[in-house]
Amino acid sequence: MIYNQSLSLLTDMYQLTMVYGYWKSGVANRHAVFHLNFRRWPFKGGYALAAGLQTAIEFLQNFSYSASDLEYLSTLGFEPKFLDFLSKFEFVCDVDAMPEGTAVFPYEPMIRVKGPIWQAQLLESPMLNLLNFQTLIATKAARICQAAHPDPVIEFGMRRAQGIDGAISATRAAFIGGCESTSDVIGGKLFKIPVRGTHAHSWVMAFDDEFSSFEAFAKIMPKGCVMLIDTYNSIEGAKRAIRVAKKLKDFELAGVRLDSGDLAALSIEVRKILDAEGFQGTKIMASNELDEYLIRDLKAQGAKITVWGVGTHLVTGQEQPALDGVYKLSAVQNAKGEWQHRLKLSEQTAKVTNPGILQVRREFDGKKYCRDVMVDELLGVGDTGVNYFDPSEVVQIKDAKDVLVPIFRGGKLVYEAPTLFEIQAYAKQELSRLPASVKRFVNPQTYWIGLEKRLYEKKLELIQKLKK
Amino acid sequence: MIYNQSLSLLTDMYQLTMVYGYWKSGVANRHAVFHLNFRRWPFKGGYALAAGLQTAIEFLQNFSYSASDLEYLSTLGFEPKFLDFLSKFEFVCDVDAMPEGTAVFPYEPMIRVKGPIWQAQLLESPMLNLLNFQTLIATKAARICQAAHPDPVIEFGMRRAQGIDGAISATRAAFIGGCESTSDVIGGKLFKIPVRGTHAHSWVMAFDDEFSSFEAFAKIMPKGCVMLIDTYNSIEGAKRAIRVAKKLKDFELAGVRLDSGDLAALSIEVRKILDAEGFQGTKIMASNELDEYLIRDLKAQGAKITVWGVGTHLVTGQEQPALDGVYKLSAVQNAKGEWQHRLKLSEQTAKVTNPGILQVRREFDGKKYCRDVMVDELLGVGDTGVNYFDPSEVVQIKDAKDVLVPIFRGGKLVYEAPTLFEIQAYAKQELSRLPASVKRFVNPQTYWIGLEKRLYEKKLELIQKLKK
Repeated sequence: MIYNQSLSLLTDMYQLTMVYGYWKSGVANRHAVFHLNFRRWPFKGGYALAAGLQTAIEFLQNFSYSASDLEYLSTLGFEPKFLDFLSKFEFVCDVDAMPEGTAVFPYEPMIRVKGPIWQAQLLESPMLNLLNFQTLIATKAARICQAAHPDPVIEFGMRRAQGIDGAISATRAAFIGGCESTSDVIGGKLFKIPVRGTHAHSWVMAFDDEFSSFEAFAKIMPKGCVMLIDTYNSIEGAKRAIRVAKKLKDFELAGVRLDSGDLAALSIEVRKILDAEGFQGTKIMASNELDEYLIRDLKAQGAKITVWGVGTHLVTGQEQPALDGVYKLSAVQNAKGEWQHRLKLSEQTAKVTNPGILQVRREFDGKKYCRDVMVDELLGVGDTGVNYFDPSEVVQIKDAKDVLVPIFRGGKLVYEAPTLFEIQAYAKQELSRLPASVKRFVNPQTYWIGLEKRLYEKKLELIQKLKK
Repeated sequence: MIYNQSLSLLTDMYQLTMVYGYWKSGVANRHAVFHLNFRRWPFKGGYALAAGLQTAIEFLQNFSYSASDLEYLSTLGFEPKFLDFLSKFEFVCDVDAMPEGTAVFPYEPMIRVKGPIWQAQLLESPMLNLLNFQTLIATKAARICQAAHPDPVIEFGMRRAQGIDGAISATRAAFIGGCESTSDVIGGKLFKIPVRGTHAHSWVMAFDDEFSSFEAFAKIMPKGCVMLIDTYNSIEGAKRAIRVAKKLKDFELAGVRLDSGDLAALSIEVRKILDAEGFQGTKIMASNELDEYLIRDLKAQGAKITVWGVGTHLVTGQEQPALDGVYKLSAVQNAKGEWQHRLKLSEQTAKVTNPGILQVRREFDGKKYCRDVMVDELLGVGDTGVNYFDPSEVVQIKDAKDVLVPIFRGGKLVYEAPTLFEIQAYAKQELSRLPASVKRFVNPQTYWIGLEKRLYEKKLELIQKLKK
């Protein structure tokens, strides 16, 4: 964590009110189960990549109420005995989650928290905050990298990101989704992600003319030098970069960068000029409001760009800046310690929740993922799945494996966290196991998800009971 | 600042490369001027509210390279002498800025940094990161509060915000834009913003039935109690809340909250039920994907909602999740210490920058703001303005006042920061001085902005010279 104060108050007020209520009503230590899932396919695509778990783990490991937190809460009217209760917070929950980089679909729990209701309740706001955003950005990155493939994508978004951590955690998530590197130096330091950079227009403008600025830049960066050529005129800029490269000895013009104008036409023209002058090895990099759709179209138009710098659209999600994740109660113990299924009704069908203590089981045929079935550990694992969107379709599941893995047991970390590079490699493998039809940008095929038959029946039974 | 490590690396790699280049080329201490401005009206509206300055001030006051920052930079290949130079960083720039809450329009500098080019250059990425986002969200909040007026708006967005600081700084900016309170406890603690909260569906689901849950909640919150009534059925929920309120003594049902379904129809129906049972004083609060357009439409449809909880759309900007702010060099001293105007050309007209050392002068007729003219302190203040979008329109400016105020002089803070409540009040006053036509959501009138005549001519001259 990079914060110098406790983040225990990174929560919504009502969590504290409810915890106070559970405590006051004498039910704070009854066990409950909550699941975090999203409901809409991000970017109208066919999948998401789970991300943010490591950040959530660090948050949980550091969770405690500081003296100043408790002092602040006392100003909100909470009674001293309750603050004393909070001050003794010791995390005792079981947490299961999808490893970062795992392909995930709507309604599937990405994280499951089981333990005393007061603790599990408290985690709602921070878990949503930490997982929603990184999952969104890892997914966006995967889409952008898919469009750019096989070219590398560099994440460039700090300046337009949503605050300091909007930049830092986006850098992390973008790397998980497949970015090769970042411009974000603090992200590079914190997560060991390779950092890259060229120069800004201001470098060129700081000198009396573009040629002098390129020459000065070439001298300080004799290797791997990439020159930004559009400060005044991209074509003239390319010619000046070449003149500088020819003038200097032991200098390699690794690349030129375009940042405005028609990137397709300009890159084709610049490529011709570079090739004609013997600079076949010089790459053309482009930036400027890029996303997966524009990269795809530029490639279709024959753009000669082979390195993509993507900022705003990548780090904010742009067309969809928030994943609609929710964190819902699905089971609670009664006074005797027996588990009770719980379900929330809604006039909006998509907002009806799933009851139980859920696990996701995924069928894999050795090449591709075939189906996911949610099972309820209270009802037991079965091999019959009911299609989530068409209950008339009932199928047999073969050799499915659990997707959620243990992270905390009784509040103790039992998970060996992979490195960020391992997570990126795992995400790549996950993407390779998704059918191409699911990865289509426009109107992708819906990946098969369902509920295990007894769970489906339990859900129906609860709905009917509650509607009475 | 709430970060426990230096934020000096909150920057893009190319800033460090350029600073290394300025240092290596012996020009690091030449003075330069940079301005931060955006180019597109956010949300297709007619104005923005400047925000984020206080966060930027704190960032600047804390700026220094820690030993671990320098160690990391050495792994990126920077030479020891340069790291030694960085380690001696002492901020010496002059900074002028628009106070937070100020109405601001495209192309106008929100912040101006003047000083040694290496320092002024370094601030590009962090200033953009800190000001772009808060300005965006303060503006979104102003629009949402305008739609809700005279009802209060509560910011509810943590769970869908872009990371930890995406939530915290959005809370701050939303308050500047006019929100009455927040659900974000850490934001409340850090910024002294009132915090509010009701309860979640999980509270209701934790009990055997909704009635018991409401009764338990009422007991812990006898005053100011707001019950969430849509867990199973909103109308039945309203009736149960009333039954609980009637059963208990010394209890006030302050409000009920709707979170799904047709908020217009449900609120009308719930209002009738409440009124018929003698609960005329009980307010109806609503949440669920609200923004300025939906609030306006719900009001037009006669919704009986008088408290609005707004989350995702407010804290992410949703339809526009990033302000397109840029930070551009506009003047630089030559070896003799003479100021040279600088301008960046572009094939995209909107990307051509303004040269000089700029101030914004605003004409006020005692009721409304009339016009803004950008003047160049190098060329001198004049009273003739050329319309930014139609140079054929030339007007005389009367009694205009400077909008940018001194913040740092020679690196020393000279600005007495207002409290967040004062900033909110100032923003409210600013909004009252904008013509209604500029505040229209759809197709607003373009507020008059222009360049002082000599500045306009200087810009033209530079464009023509560079195009040759």
